[in-house]
Amino acid sequence: MKAAILGFGNVASATIKHFMLNAELIRSKVRTPIEFVRVATRTPARAHGQVPEGCHVSDDGWALVNDPQVDVVLELTGDVELSRQLVLRALANRKHVVTANKALLARHGEEILRKAEEVERSVLFEGAVAVSIPIIKTLRESAAANRISSITGILNGTSNYVLWQMSEHAVDFATAIADAQRKGYAEADPTLDVSGEDAAHKLALLASLSFGVPINFGAVEFKGIEAIDQRDIQFAQRLGYRIKLIAQARMDSAGLFASVRPTLVPMNSMLAQVGEAMNGIALQGDLQGTAFLYGSGAGGRQTASAVLADLIELANRGGPDGTGGAFNMGFRCGHVAAHKVCYSHERVTAFYIRLRWDDPSAMLAKVGQVFADTDVSVNVLLQDAGQGGQTHLIAITHETTSLQLRDMLPKLQKAAGSGHSVVIYPVLGEVG
Amino acid sequence: MKAAILGFGNVASATIKHFMLNAELIRSKVRTPIEFVRVATRTPARAHGQVPEGCHVSDDGWALVNDPQVDVVLELTGDVELSRQLVLRALANRKHVVTANKALLARHGEEILRKAEEVERSVLFEGAVAVSIPIIKTLRESAAANRISSITGILNGTSNYVLWQMSEHAVDFATAIADAQRKGYAEADPTLDVSGEDAAHKLALLASLSFGVPINFGAVEFKGIEAIDQRDIQFAQRLGYRIKLIAQARMDSAGLFASVRPTLVPMNSMLAQVGEAMNGIALQGDLQGTAFLYGSGAGGRQTASAVLADLIELANRGGPDGTGGAFNMGFRCGHVAAHKVCYSHERVTAFYIRLRWDDPSAMLAKVGQVFADTDVSVNVLLQDAGQGGQTHLIAITHETTSLQLRDMLPKLQKAAGSGHSVVIYPVLGEVG
Repeated sequence: MKAAILGFGNVASATIKHFMLNAELIRSKVRTPIEFVRVATRTPARAHGQVPEGCHVSDDGWALVNDPQVDVVLELTGDVELSRQLVLRALANRKHVVTANKALLARHGEEILRKAEEVERSVLFEGAVAVSIPIIKTLRESAAANRISSITGILNGTSNYVLWQMSEHAVDFATAIADAQRKGYAEADPTLDVSGEDAAHKLALLASLSFGVPINFGAVEFKGIEAIDQRDIQFAQRLGYRIKLIAQARMDSAGLFASVRPTLVPMNSMLAQVGEAMNGIALQGDLQGTAFLYGSGAGGRQTASAVLADLIELANRGGPDGTGGAFNMGFRCGHVAAHKVCYSHERVTAFYIRLRWDDPSAMLAKVGQVFADTDVSVNVLLQDAGQGGQTHLIAITHETTSLQLRDMLPKLQKAAGSGHSVVIYPVLGEVG
Repeated sequence: MKAAILGFGNVASATIKHFMLNAELIRSKVRTPIEFVRVATRTPARAHGQVPEGCHVSDDGWALVNDPQVDVVLELTGDVELSRQLVLRALANRKHVVTANKALLARHGEEILRKAEEVERSVLFEGAVAVSIPIIKTLRESAAANRISSITGILNGTSNYVLWQMSEHAVDFATAIADAQRKGYAEADPTLDVSGEDAAHKLALLASLSFGVPINFGAVEFKGIEAIDQRDIQFAQRLGYRIKLIAQARMDSAGLFASVRPTLVPMNSMLAQVGEAMNGIALQGDLQGTAFLYGSGAGGRQTASAVLADLIELANRGGPDGTGGAFNMGFRCGHVAAHKVCYSHERVTAFYIRLRWDDPSAMLAKVGQVFADTDVSVNVLLQDAGQGGQTHLIAITHETTSLQLRDMLPKLQKAAGSGHSVVIYPVLGEVG
């Protein structure tokens, strides 16, 4: 099976390097031997001496996807628009595709998968989500007999590292992100990661695999961690929670719900144990119950592990013409579960609410009245005199409807007075 | 694809039931439709009304494995010797096999896999280990490009439930096992589970998949939880550890090491978070780094999830004659990594040691002298006056060789005096 790589960044070079280092091991695991025959990169000089003998390096991606000897194209660029065209051409030329590009699949996955179906070729992408966690294969194959009700995860290592630093060392967002950049966990421009968009790309893929619906990035709400106040991390901790950037997709009678947002997670849950730049995913199926998977979410070597697994899978499906194995998204392509999309304001959720007041003496009575008037039931209440004479009141509510919330928030805001905004985060319920 | 089931206990009936309940879902995921055509059970009356229309029920296993229309045999009995013969016959008749029978594979796996290779048929067994954790597929496929250095897990739910009860409610072993029996987590005769043998069966399979060596149950040391003293659970907790029945296989320059034994696990590790009757497995590969997977280890519905995933996999490999997909154990059958087997006494490990003395005043000096004489370095020391005038001394050592240990133990025993045995447990190091 002849493989070719688009791109020669971190992931591509690690893929080639470890393919060569573990060559004997990999050979023992495949029915059809794998060979790298082409690399296309904007900077061919970088690949010098890093590819196997006989592997052709150029800067021409089109020549690569049009090369008749190539059986599988590994799309390992960070690009979206050009990649879309190259991948579609590779499929049109009846080549299999392996990719680690979540943005490409979140935005153009439906078009790519339809093309793949039409030409009966595989599109594998274990490296696109939580690379050291085999979540794509688990959803596509291991949980295949289950109705999945929810999938809940920490899918962005950068954000998790920043929140973990803020929690462990009581530093603010700016300090934590600077530290993450210094250690290589964050890009110079970290927007894609800390805004929640990267996790939303991944969640769009997981929702499609979990529920048999088309990839629909537009249906994923996302909110980032940039505005998280150190105080809320501390208050949450005192109440037995950690604030994590939680990606969750659910399918129930209300429809498909998919959101990425900072969320309070009970300290004793597996998700709360996910520290540093790691990823974790909890999965709820009607037969298997709850499963939880944990591992690295990024890194050249770790992504190479996932990309090579996909390549080995193709080599075991019967080589160049092998079209066996599970469907690309687990489901037969014609199958789309009928569903509507619902958003966070339509869901019943418990909330963390923080208010800051200048006049603490009157505070409790006023807030108590607002909760009573709007019929919001409070689970935990914490009043903190804090520093500088400012008093905070923190409430964790029981499950609350959007109607109640819409009713309550302006009243709380009015009671707190101008200049003191109400801070609000959802609280993760039972992962089920 | 025509499937037939040997046995009609919990797992078999759940498999049929959930296959029918999720029929439409499963149909959307397979290239070849699946149909159940036969069941063989000692008690055919039990299956009455529980199988699909047209599915033939009898008490004749031989007729089932000899039925030419059957493509796949699901071996779901608890039996070992008769099952071995039936499975070998099914393979000889060129049928694929799906099994959840770990004892069968631990004891006769090599013979069965060789036969399967000879006739080019698949033997799948996701249901044999930690059913809601896709560990077989993860080792066989997802981690395929990795050199695995270690796999460490809690593989027996009964034992974990008992230890969890002993830890949470400070009850002794007898009380905890009675509670587990009442709740259906332990058999009337719990020996297989609490002796470590069941976990050892599973570890033999995981070691083979991880390191590409033959299944060798004889190479797995195992020790159970029957003799664990409530006091050691409490002392371990005070020092920041939980006692868990840990199954671990490692491959390094010393050889293959595979053992199941009560082990102290750091409280903040993922493995320590595995409560109730759950399972958890940590996996260390050279590319992916550490991954951790958590889920149910038993249960009819949960095992059905794994068995049906294997069946769906076969239906996607191309139906009755499909022989694609990964090799049964991940590795090409001819491939066996050269290795020797090593045992716990050949390993360097940290230890928990507890002594009980009648004469506490002289205790510390004597013990200190023993550690100094034998060059064992102590990491943590705890002296507890306890109740009834008996003083306990607990030490957690740094990594210690077997030579040091062999030298030290009799000296400690002698110092403690007769009637007071020295309690000793290994401490889990970095899971790597």
